[in-house]
Amino acid sequence: MIYVFGHQNPDSDSICSAIVTADWLNSQGKLATPFRLGEITPETAFILQQANVVQPELLNIALNEKTVWLVDFTDAEQGPPSLAFSNIIGIIDHHRLGTVMTQNPPDVWIRSVGCCATIIWQILTLENQQPISASQATLMLGAILSDTVNLTSSTTTGHDIAAVKSLSAICQLNYDEFVQGLLAAKTDIHGLSADYLLMKDAKRYQISGFSVLISQIELTSMSAIEAILPEVLAQLAKQNQTGNFDIAVLVVTDIFKQNSTLYFSQDNQFHFSSVSLLGFISRKKDILPWLTRTILTSSD
Amino acid sequence: MIYVFGHQNPDSDSICSAIVTADWLNSQGKLATPFRLGEITPETAFILQQANVVQPELLNIALNEKTVWLVDFTDAEQGPPSLAFSNIIGIIDHHRLGTVMTQNPPDVWIRSVGCCATIIWQILTLENQQPISASQATLMLGAILSDTVNLTSSTTTGHDIAAVKSLSAICQLNYDEFVQGLLAAKTDIHGLSADYLLMKDAKRYQISGFSVLISQIELTSMSAIEAILPEVLAQLAKQNQTGNFDIAVLVVTDIFKQNSTLYFSQDNQFHFSSVSLLGFISRKKDILPWLTRTILTSSD
Repeated sequence: MIYVFGHQNPDSDSICSAIVTADWLNSQGKLATPFRLGEITPETAFILQQANVVQPELLNIALNEKTVWLVDFTDAEQGPPSLAFSNIIGIIDHHRLGTVMTQNPPDVWIRSVGCCATIIWQILTLENQQPISASQATLMLGAILSDTVNLTSSTTTGHDIAAVKSLSAICQLNYDEFVQGLLAAKTDIHGLSADYLLMKDAKRYQISGFSVLISQIELTSMSAIEAILPEVLAQLAKQNQTGNFDIAVLVVTDIFKQNSTLYFSQDNQFHFSSVSLLGFISRKKDILPWLTRTILTSSD
Repeated sequence: MIYVFGHQNPDSDSICSAIVTADWLNSQGKLATPFRLGEITPETAFILQQANVVQPELLNIALNEKTVWLVDFTDAEQGPPSLAFSNIIGIIDHHRLGTVMTQNPPDVWIRSVGCCATIIWQILTLENQQPISASQATLMLGAILSDTVNLTSSTTTGHDIAAVKSLSAICQLNYDEFVQGLLAAKTDIHGLSADYLLMKDAKRYQISGFSVLISQIELTSMSAIEAILPEVLAQLAKQNQTGNFDIAVLVVTDIFKQNSTLYFSQDNQFHFSSVSLLGFISRKKDILPWLTRTILTSSD
């Protein structure tokens, strides 16, 4: 059996891409099951409900000797520790090539597009010419609209736009209502705890030998987080210490104004404080490269 | 400009795939130049001559800040040290996913097939539907017949067979004569020095934290190397020491009898000696996995 899953603190792309990839593998006669590496977000719950699909089971076994297919990440730090002892046979991703290594030659698709689901759509339509169900189309559409913030993120490519057009036609839902519901679910932080807010979309990285945590909270207005921000930053400092990170960063992104504020945990060795960056919205394309350059310069 | 190249101690696949990939990138309006990371083998010279193509320039600059496209490897140890400071934008490979990392999301095709050139053929014909010249077909055909030992290696897949069929039809050369000339050039070690023999197809790996050198010599008969073997093994011991390897291995493969003998440098910490393995012909599919398991077991 092939264990198909995305990264820890799963976003909609990691969940939806795992489900559709497992479907695709099953259609080829390869027994595959999607898993999640954490609780789903309200946004993902909204997409699954629209697609009429139940959430995948939580992965709660060690992966030693298990056959694995990764979606949406290649940084080993973003998977479970036992990933190193698994047999990774396939990868579909749209991030930098990270620290994951394999025992044997795998099947790997990595493309510089806005969403992992866009690559899966390309495989299904262009390479394999497989029929896509309304349910699968809804899952992929939801993932793409989430990752590209309704096709406005700097990561958006012509391929994402083509995928959205094609998938919308298949799933036949009310596009505007779907986007509105999705972005509302994505940015609604009402009633969420500081700890949940910090970790719900946190990712771990190795940058030039430093262990880094980058958490991102997307909002339709910066003011929405003001009241709880001190509590979230206290959690950030706590995570930095207990997680043994060299640096922990909280990115608060205004998806309408298209800018981000980065808050650094105060006990980092680089003595960074907060910084606001206009036009920064994508962790992958805007924030990670900026942070990599900044860390490289500061550690000279 | 995009620097396109395969691994150090280049085999025919690393040279031919770099040339055709650079052609493909140029056809898309992306300025690309193929390079080689060492002297070409007599086999590669034979293929280039049949294709009427000159050999690529030797890569002799530091890659800092340069834009790079890798073919036929993802183990950073098999590239130049400055690879770590380059901007890797693309990878086409058929080996295990190794230690290479990228700064940004690259375009990556890795497939479990017998030859990197087979994947390039798939991209050109299936994905991009691009015309292939007789010269390009000869380069890819030569690489595939070399890597799969005329489609007899355990790494051979239906994709490699389909590529050979399609490419043979395009280049219109005498297939039997081409294979004969290629295998003769591949296995003729007459007059070659022990040092050259050891290093002409040597690759570096990180296996469970150990630094490993695996050199392979393919022959049509084990007796061909008998006279010079002691000298080659002396070079192996020397390389182990000067290259600071934890373990250095020479693999002598009989391509007709389809078996290999592994000779270990005597000063390795695992106290391995030589071992003959029936049916072992592919470094990637047979020898590397066996060695990985063996090292893991011995270092427990």
